[in-house]
Amino acid sequence: MDHPSVIRPEAYAEWRTEKMGKSTLFESPRLLVGLNAFEPGQSHALHAHAGTDKLYHVLYGEGVFLLEGRELAMRAGDVLVAPDGVPHGVKNTGAGRLLVMAVLAPAP
Amino acid sequence: MDHPSVIRPEAYAEWRTEKMGKSTLFESPRLLVGLNAFEPGQSHALHAHAGTDKLYHVLYGEGVFLLEGRELAMRAGDVLVAPDGVPHGVKNTGAGRLLVMAVLAPAP
Repeated sequence: MDHPSVIRPEAYAEWRTEKMGKSTLFESPRLLVGLNAFEPGQSHALHAHAGTDKLYHVLYGEGVFLLEGRELAMRAGDVLVAPDGVPHGVKNTGAGRLLVMAVLAPAP
Repeated sequence: MDHPSVIRPEAYAEWRTEKMGKSTLFESPRLLVGLNAFEPGQSHALHAHAGTDKLYHVLYGEGVFLLEGRELAMRAGDVLVAPDGVPHGVKNTGAGRLLVMAVLAPAP
């Protein structure tokens, strides 16, 4: 999309039947702003980024954040930061779609 | 606050009668996640960050983004990215409070 412009992020979600859908809203060497779209039951396995901090912001739906062996309940409006090297993931445990904004700095 | 933990960002807003209130949710050399809290009529004047990209996410309320001489209407759920060097600001033109999450990479 053109930037800078005001957008509704949910309009850019990509839903896939076979696995979590990913889309990118903005990317520079410093910052990656993307969407992770989870159909019910879909997940993003525990992983870590060396040298990158990641901010999650739940736009709608509900599920759990996977974090260092723990599962943390989350719902729309919740925020989690996974700093450099901290293993993290997401699972949609709800009955509906789960849409999460993921912000990575710097871009991996 | 402790991280990583799931938070409700609005719980950390700081409201001030004299000017926009600022609070920090997370900070590292790579990433600053903060809140800008605007009472009705309050604003954050046009400014720019050299070498830093900034993501705005409107949590609630309504107003305008100031951007390179333009005013862009915004409301809860809207997102704007002001890349490196692009002058930007915010004004609460609504009747209620305006809360905006501001994400800067790298931290200025």
